[in-house]
Amino acid sequence: MAFDKFFIQQSVKDFPVTVARGIGQVMFQDNMWTGVLFLIGIFWGAYMEGFPLVAWGALVGVLASTLTGYILRLPDQKGANGLWGFNGVLVGCAFPTFLASTVWMWIGLIICSALTTIARSGMDNVLSRWHVSSFTFPFVFCTWIFLLSARLFDGFPAMYMGSPEFPHGDAAKVSMDFGNLVIYWLRGISQVFLIKSWVCGVFFLAGLAVSSWRAAVWAAVGSAIALFIAFIWNGPATDISDGLYGFSPVLTAIALGATFCNFSWRSAIWAVLGTIVTVFIQAAMNAFFAPMGLPTLTGPFCVGTWIFLLPAYKFFQPESK
Amino acid sequence: MAFDKFFIQQSVKDFPVTVARGIGQVMFQDNMWTGVLFLIGIFWGAYMEGFPLVAWGALVGVLASTLTGYILRLPDQKGANGLWGFNGVLVGCAFPTFLASTVWMWIGLIICSALTTIARSGMDNVLSRWHVSSFTFPFVFCTWIFLLSARLFDGFPAMYMGSPEFPHGDAAKVSMDFGNLVIYWLRGISQVFLIKSWVCGVFFLAGLAVSSWRAAVWAAVGSAIALFIAFIWNGPATDISDGLYGFSPVLTAIALGATFCNFSWRSAIWAVLGTIVTVFIQAAMNAFFAPMGLPTLTGPFCVGTWIFLLPAYKFFQPESK
Amino acid sequence: MAFDKFFIQQSVKDFPVTVARGIGQVMFQDNMWTGVLFLIGIFWGAYMEGFPLVAWGALVGVLASTLTGYILRLPDQKGANGLWGFNGVLVGCAFPTFLASTVWMWIGLIICSALTTIARSGMDNVLSRWHVSSFTFPFVFCTWIFLLSARLFDGFPAMYMGSPEFPHGDAAKVSMDFGNLVIYWLRGISQVFLIKSWVCGVFFLAGLAVSSWRAAVWAAVGSAIALFIAFIWNGPATDISDGLYGFSPVLTAIALGATFCNFSWRSAIWAVLGTIVTVFIQAAMNAFFAPMGLPTLTGPFCVGTWIFLLPAYKFFQPESK
Repeated sequence: MAFDKFFIQQSVKDFPVTVARGIGQVMFQDNMWTGVLFLIGIFWGAYMEGFPLVAWGALVGVLASTLTGYILRLPDQKGANGLWGFNGVLVGCAFPTFLASTVWMWIGLIICSALTTIARSGMDNVLSRWHVSSFTFPFVFCTWIFLLSARLFDGFPAMYMGSPEFPHGDAAKVSMDFGNLVIYWLRGISQVFLIKSWVCGVFFLAGLAVSSWRAAVWAAVGSAIALFIAFIWNGPATDISDGLYGFSPVLTAIALGATFCNFSWRSAIWAVLGTIVTVFIQAAMNAFFAPMGLPTLTGPFCVGTWIFLLPAYKFFQPESK
Repeated sequence: MAFDKFFIQQSVKDFPVTVARGIGQVMFQDNMWTGVLFLIGIFWGAYMEGFPLVAWGALVGVLASTLTGYILRLPDQKGANGLWGFNGVLVGCAFPTFLASTVWMWIGLIICSALTTIARSGMDNVLSRWHVSSFTFPFVFCTWIFLLSARLFDGFPAMYMGSPEFPHGDAAKVSMDFGNLVIYWLRGISQVFLIKSWVCGVFFLAGLAVSSWRAAVWAAVGSAIALFIAFIWNGPATDISDGLYGFSPVLTAIALGATFCNFSWRSAIWAVLGTIVTVFIQAAMNAFFAPMGLPTLTGPFCVGTWIFLLPAYKFFQPESK
Repeated sequence: MAFDKFFIQQSVKDFPVTVARGIGQVMFQDNMWTGVLFLIGIFWGAYMEGFPLVAWGALVGVLASTLTGYILRLPDQKGANGLWGFNGVLVGCAFPTFLASTVWMWIGLIICSALTTIARSGMDNVLSRWHVSSFTFPFVFCTWIFLLSARLFDGFPAMYMGSPEFPHGDAAKVSMDFGNLVIYWLRGISQVFLIKSWVCGVFFLAGLAVSSWRAAVWAAVGSAIALFIAFIWNGPATDISDGLYGFSPVLTAIALGATFCNFSWRSAIWAVLGTIVTVFIQAAMNAFFAPMGLPTLTGPFCVGTWIFLLPAYKFFQPESK
C-alpha cells in the first residue's frame, strides 16, 4: 500500500505546482503564480544583493521540506496546498544569510528544512485546539536551533550573525528623505524572505496582487505602519532602513487583515492594532536575543498574530459572519 | 445592536464601580472598597516616594484596559467583576516606574493597557482548558514587550531600568533590626503595585481585610515567608529590604491560601509550600533576565501559582469538597 | 480514610521496590534490577570521580520525591511503577554536581525533589492532551529554578557552575584515538546521571539490558550518533570528551527507538533523525543559556523527543500497529 504506483505518479505530476504554492504560502497565498513571482523576486534580490546562495538555498529548502511531506505521507490535501513548503523555503533563505557556505551548512539546511515539516505537524496538532495555526513558527524554531548551535559548532561558521552583546540603542537617525522612505518601505516587504532589495519588494507585491488585492494592500499598509512606528519611537536607524522592522508586521497585517478575518471596519482596526503591536514585539525580541546573538526571524509575526487571533475566535466570529 | 443606548447607559452608570473592582482584583478581591483603599494607598505611596506619576499612570492604565473591554464588548459579567482592570492598573504602575515620562511613554502605556485586555482574553481561552486563569500574566507579558523594546526605541527612555549584566550576587547583608524587618515586610506587600512604602502596605492590608480577612492574613504570611526565606538563603540585601522578594510570594499566598483552595490544614501547607517556591522562582527569574536588564514583574507569582494549581485540580478537589 | 493503616502497611512494604523502579525509570525501565544496577553505577562513578556526594544526593532525591508521591496520595499505580522517583534521583545528582555542600543546599535538594512530583503531576495533566508525557522536564524545570537562584542566593554556593558569559566556540580538537572515543562514548551514557565515568556507563548499559535489550542497543546507538555528529560538526572538544553532548541524545534514542514506538524500519529512521536533531538542540541550548551560566540538564532530550512524538501520534500509529 505504501508508496504505491498511483500515489507516486500523482505526486510527481503535482510536484512543481506544490512547490510553487509552498513559496506563495509564506504570505498565505495558495497560488502557484504568486509562488513563481516570489521566486523571481528572490533570485533577482539575492543576485543584486550579491548573496546568490540565498536564492539557491531557498530552492533547496522548499524541495527538502516538500519531499519530506511526501515521504512521511502526511495527509495529502494540505501538502498540495503548499503547506509543506513555506517553512522550508524560509529555512533555505536563512541559512546562507547567516552562515558561511560549507558542506555542513548545506547538510544542515536540508536537515532543518525537513525538520520543519515534522515540527509543523506537531505544532499544528497542539495549536489546532485553539483554532490557530503554527504559521512560520516551525521555520523560526528549527532555524533558531541550528543558528544557536552555530555558536558552538564550527561546522556552521556563524560568519554573518551579529556578535552576542547586551542590548543597546543606536544613536543614528533615520533619513527622512522621501525617496529613501519608499526604499525602506519596500525593503520591509522583501525582508520577509530575508532579502534587502526594494525591487524584490515590488515583485512580492505583484505576487500578492496576482492572488489577492486585499493581501497586497495589507502588505503595503503593514510595512508603512512598521516604518512609521519604528520611526516615531526612534528605533535603530540601520535596522529600520534595512527593512528589519518591517517583515514581521507585514505578515501580521496580511494574516489579520486579509487571511483570517472577514472584512469589516472592526477587523481592519484589529489588524492595524496587531500590526502596531508586532513592531514593538520585533524590538522586544531583538533585545531579548541580543545576549545570544540570535536573530528573531519571523518570530514577532507569530507572537503578534497569536495574541490577536486567540481571543478573536471567541468574540470576532459573530461580527465577521 | 452594537453600542445600543441601553448598553451605553448601563456601562456609564457601572463604570466607576467596575474600575474600583478592577483595582481590587489585583489581589483577587471583587470588592470596590478594596479597590478604593488600594488606590488611596497607591497615591499615598507614590507621592511619598516622590514618584507621583506612578499613581496617575495606575489611573490611566485601569481606565484604558477597562474601556477596551467595553469597546470590544467582551462578555459583560466578567468585566463587571473588575477582570478587565487589574492588568491595566499594573501596566500603569510599571511604565512610569521604569521609563521616563515622554508623550510616547504615555501613548505606549495606553496601548499596552488596552493590549492586556486582548491578551487576557486569548490567554484565558488557552488556560481554561486546565481550569486555571492567566492571573496577572497579560500585564507581565505585554509590559515585558514594551520594556524590552525600550532598550532599542529611544522614544521609551529606559531611565529607571537596571543595566543589562550577567547575574551576580550581592555582598551586603540585610539589617536584622526588628523595626527594619517590619518595614521590609510591609514593603513586600506594597511592591505588588510596584511601590516601596510601608504605609502603602498598611493600606493594602486594610483593603484586603475589608473584603476578606483570610486574604489579608495570607498576604501578611506570604510577605513574612518571603522575607524569611530570602534572608536565610542570604539573598541580595538591597532587593530584600526594598520588598522586591515579597510581592510575588504575597500574591501566590493569597491565590493558593485564600482564593483557589478551600480551607483545610492540607491546603494551608500547600499554600506555604507554593509561597516558598515562589521566592526561589523570583531569584531565578531575576538571574534569567539579568542579561536583558528586564524586571520580572509578577511573573514569578504566575509561574509559582500555576505549578501548584495545575495538579491541584486533579487531587485537591475531593479533599477540599 | 486518609493515611489508613492498610495504605501505610502496603506502602512501606513496596517502598524499596518503588524507589528502585524510580531510578530505572530515568531511562524508561520499569524494572527494579535496572534501578539497582543504575544505583551501583552511580555510586561507583561518583566515588571514582571524587564526587561521592552526587551518589548520596541521588539517594536523598529519590526518597524525597517518592515519599512526596505517597504523602500527596497521588494515584498509586503510577507511583508504584517508579514514576515518582526518576525526577527526584536526577535532582539529587544535579545539586551536589553544581552547588557546594551546605545545609541550605541539602534542604534545597529535598524541596526541589519534592517539587518535581508536584510539577510532574501538573505538566502531565497539560501534556496528556496530546498523548505525550513530561519525561524528565519536571527535574529540568525545577532544578533550573534552584540553580538560577544560586546566582543570587549565597546560601546555594554556585561553586561548580560555569560563569555566565556570551556563547563562543572552542578551538581545541577532539582526540581521534580509538580508545579515547570508546571512553567518550560510554561517558555520554553515564552523563545521563551527571557522572563522567566510562565504568559507570557500562553499568548503565547492563542495567538497561537486564530490562530490555532493545533499550540498551538504542542507548549505545544514541551515544555513538551524538559523538559522531558533534565531532564532524566540530563542537567544543572538552564537552564532547566529557560526554556532555551524549546524555540527551541517549535518552531521545531510547524514547523514540525503544519506548514510544513499535519496531519497524520507519520508526528506526525516525529515532535516528530525532537523535541527530537532539545533538543540535544540545548545542543550541548550551548557547542560549550561556549568558545565565545555566546548564541545560536533560532539557534537549525533552524538546527533541516532543518534536518527534507530537506529530508521530498522528501518522505513526497506523504504521506501527
